[in-house]
Amino acid sequence: MNGEFVSGFVRDCDAIRARGPLIHCITNYVAMNFNANALLAVGASPLMSFRQEEMRDVAALCDALYVNIGCPDRALTDAAETAVGAVGELGKPWVLDPVGAGATQLRTDIAGELIREGHPSIIRGNASEIMALAGSSVCRTRGVDSAVGSEMALDSARELASDAGCVVVVSGSTDYITDGRQVLTVENGSPLMRRVSGTGCTVSALCAAFAAVDSDCLTAAWNAMALMAVAGERAASRYRGTGTLMTDILDELSLCNAAQFSSVIRGTVLTE
Amino acid sequence: MNGEFVSGFVRDCDAIRARGPLIHCITNYVAMNFNANALLAVGASPLMSFRQEEMRDVAALCDALYVNIGCPDRALTDAAETAVGAVGELGKPWVLDPVGAGATQLRTDIAGELIREGHPSIIRGNASEIMALAGSSVCRTRGVDSAVGSEMALDSARELASDAGCVVVVSGSTDYITDGRQVLTVENGSPLMRRVSGTGCTVSALCAAFAAVDSDCLTAAWNAMALMAVAGERAASRYRGTGTLMTDILDELSLCNAAQFSSVIRGTVLTE
Amino acid sequence: MNGEFVSGFVRDCDAIRARGPLIHCITNYVAMNFNANALLAVGASPLMSFRQEEMRDVAALCDALYVNIGCPDRALTDAAETAVGAVGELGKPWVLDPVGAGATQLRTDIAGELIREGHPSIIRGNASEIMALAGSSVCRTRGVDSAVGSEMALDSARELASDAGCVVVVSGSTDYITDGRQVLTVENGSPLMRRVSGTGCTVSALCAAFAAVDSDCLTAAWNAMALMAVAGERAASRYRGTGTLMTDILDELSLCNAAQFSSVIRGTVLTE
Repeated sequence: MNGEFVSGFVRDCDAIRARGPLIHCITNYVAMNFNANALLAVGASPLMSFRQEEMRDVAALCDALYVNIGCPDRALTDAAETAVGAVGELGKPWVLDPVGAGATQLRTDIAGELIREGHPSIIRGNASEIMALAGSSVCRTRGVDSAVGSEMALDSARELASDAGCVVVVSGSTDYITDGRQVLTVENGSPLMRRVSGTGCTVSALCAAFAAVDSDCLTAAWNAMALMAVAGERAASRYRGTGTLMTDILDELSLCNAAQFSSVIRGTVLTE
Repeated sequence: MNGEFVSGFVRDCDAIRARGPLIHCITNYVAMNFNANALLAVGASPLMSFRQEEMRDVAALCDALYVNIGCPDRALTDAAETAVGAVGELGKPWVLDPVGAGATQLRTDIAGELIREGHPSIIRGNASEIMALAGSSVCRTRGVDSAVGSEMALDSARELASDAGCVVVVSGSTDYITDGRQVLTVENGSPLMRRVSGTGCTVSALCAAFAAVDSDCLTAAWNAMALMAVAGERAASRYRGTGTLMTDILDELSLCNAAQFSSVIRGTVLTE
Repeated sequence: MNGEFVSGFVRDCDAIRARGPLIHCITNYVAMNFNANALLAVGASPLMSFRQEEMRDVAALCDALYVNIGCPDRALTDAAETAVGAVGELGKPWVLDPVGAGATQLRTDIAGELIREGHPSIIRGNASEIMALAGSSVCRTRGVDSAVGSEMALDSARELASDAGCVVVVSGSTDYITDGRQVLTVENGSPLMRRVSGTGCTVSALCAAFAAVDSDCLTAAWNAMALMAVAGERAASRYRGTGTLMTDILDELSLCNAAQFSSVIRGTVLTE
C-alpha cells in the first residue's frame, strides 16, 4: 500500500485516541451496543439519540454523525432527517449505512432521500445496497446481506459517488473505497466476520470516527475499513466460535497498535 | 431418543447451513442482538424490522417470521399484527414467544389476539405463559420468569395446541413439545442458562429457523429445543460466569457438529 | 471501611440472591442487554417494558424501578412518568440515571421533571450530570461523559440530595454517595470500565436491585457502587481488551463471593 495512506492511518488512529471525538449515532437496535463499544474501543465517544427535539443540540455537541437504517422506525428516520440537516448546516461530516436498501422499497426510498436531501460525507454498504442506490437493476439484496460480490458493485459505487458528491464504500472480501475518481481497496478481513451481527454497521460507525478527525473522507473511510478488517482478521486467526469472535474483535480494536496494524494492511490504489 | 428424530435433527441443522433461511424478527430490544447472533451462528440470516410500511415486502422476502412480545411497544405489536397476516397469506411459518403472558393483562391480550387472528405455527413459552394462554388460573407468572415447573403446564400445552391448531413448547428443566396429541421431550440443558438474558427468546428464534427448512413443526420445534439445550449444556460444562456463558453458547451454536450433538440428546416420545 | 457497611454489603448481596427481586427497567436501548444480564448475574430479575398501558400492572409486580434517559424516546419518557407515579403510590423505591443531563436542555428538563414529580429514591450520575441537576453552571457535560472529576460535584450532590430528599451518587475515580448529610465513598474500580458501554447505567440498575432488598437507600446505593467497583477492578486486573472486559465484569458479578469482595472494598465515611 501507498506509504502516504499507511502514515495517515497511524496518524488518524492516534488522533481519535487523543481527541476522543463525540459521535452521534442514529442506528439500529440490534447493532447499537456493538457500535457503541467499538467506538469506545478505538477512543471515540458514542452518543445515541433519536429524539427529534434534541437533534440540533446534539448536532452542536458532536464531531460527526452516523446514520444506520437497519431498523427503520419512523422515530429514527424522522430524527435522522433533522439530524443530517443540522450537521449539514454546521459543516460536520456524516456517514450513511443504507442497511437493506434494495431489499424493500421503503429502505431504498429512505436512503435515497437522505442522500439527496442530506448530502452524506460517506456511504458504506454491501454490493447489493450500493447497486440499488445507484439505480442498478442487476441484483436484489437477500434481506440485509448482499447477493453478489463487492467487485460487481464497483461501477455503481463510482457512479453513486460522482452523483452524490461523496465517498462510497462497498464492503466485501475486497473493500472498495471511492470518491468517484480514485479507487482504493482493502484486502484484509475474514469471511467469519459476516457471522457476527453488526460488523458492517460497526465499520460504518468507525467511518464517522475517522471522518471526525480527518477532513479527507477518502482517507477517513479507507482508515476505518482497514482498521476493522485487520482487527477482524486478527480476531478470526484465533477463532473459537462466533460469540467470542465478537468480543475478540472489540479486544483487537481496543488494543490496536496502529503502527503494528498498518504493517499488515493489504490494499491498493487502483489506477483511474 | 427415537432414531427418526435424531436423523431429522442432523438433516435440518445441515439444511439451515446449506440454505441460510432469512428470518424476519420482531423481537424485544433486550434480546435482539443475542437473537440475531444466534441465528447467524446456526447459519440462518436475521432481518429485524417493525416498520409497518415494509411488513408485506419483508414477508415476501423471508422464509419464516419470529414474533416476541418481551417489550410490547405499540409500534412492535402493530407491526406484528400486519406481519403475521402477511406471512399467513403466503403460507409461511411463524413462531410466537408470548413473553410475560399472564404477568400483565396487556401481554395476555396481545398474545391471545395474535394466536386467534394470526394462527402461529409454533408457540414457545415458559410454564406460566403457556398456562395463562390456555386460560388456566392456577398460577401467575413472576415477571417474565415462570413461577412453576414445566411439567405443571403440560396439560395446558396440549389444550392450547389443540385449540390453536399449532405446536406448543413449554421450556423448563424438561422441555415439552406437543401438537396436542404427540408429546416429545428434551432433557438436556442447564439451570445456568436462565441466568443469561434472552436464552428463551433465542430458542424461539431458532424454532423459526428450523420451521423455515422443515414443514413438520413438531420436528422443527423439537430440533430447536434440542440444539439450544445441548449447546447450553456444553457451554455450562465449562462455566466461568454468566458473561462468558453467553458468548460460549453462541460459540457452541456456531461450531455445532450436528451428528456429535445428536448423540448426546436426551429426549423421549411420550405415549399419548 | 466501617464494619457496619461491610456486614450490610454481605447481607444485602445474599438477600438479592435469596429473594430474586423483580426490577422494572425503563432504560436505553444501548445498555438494555448489559443491564439485564447484570441484574440476572447478581440474582435479581429484570423486566423491561415501556408500554404505557401496562405501567401500573408492572409497578404492582415489581420490587423496584430503574429509569434511565440515555435514549430519551417519547414513548420511554412518557412511560417513565406513569411508572414513577405508580411506584410512588405503592411506596416502592426507584432509581434515576439522568444520562446526558446538562448535555442537552431536553435531558436536563426530563430529569428535572422526573425528580420534582416522581421523587426518586436514588439518583446516580456522573459529575457533569449531577452538577447540571443541582443547577450549577460550572461545567457542561461532554456528550454523555463527564467533563470533570467526581470530587468537583460533591457539593452539588449534597445540595441535590437535600433538595430532592433522596440519595445522590456521583460516579468517578472516587464514587460519592450522600443523603445530603452523610457522605460515603467507594475507591475501588478501574478507569478501563469507562471504555465499556453502559457500565454507569448498569450500576444504576444494581442500585435498584439493592434498594429492593434494603429500605436504607444510602446503604443500598453504597452496596451497589462497591459491588460494581470491585467486580470491575477484578475484571480489569486480567484485562485483555474492552470486549472481554464486558463479559468478565458479568462473570465477576455472577460469581461474586460477597464476603471475599467485602474484604477488598476501599471506602470511607466522610465526617459531616
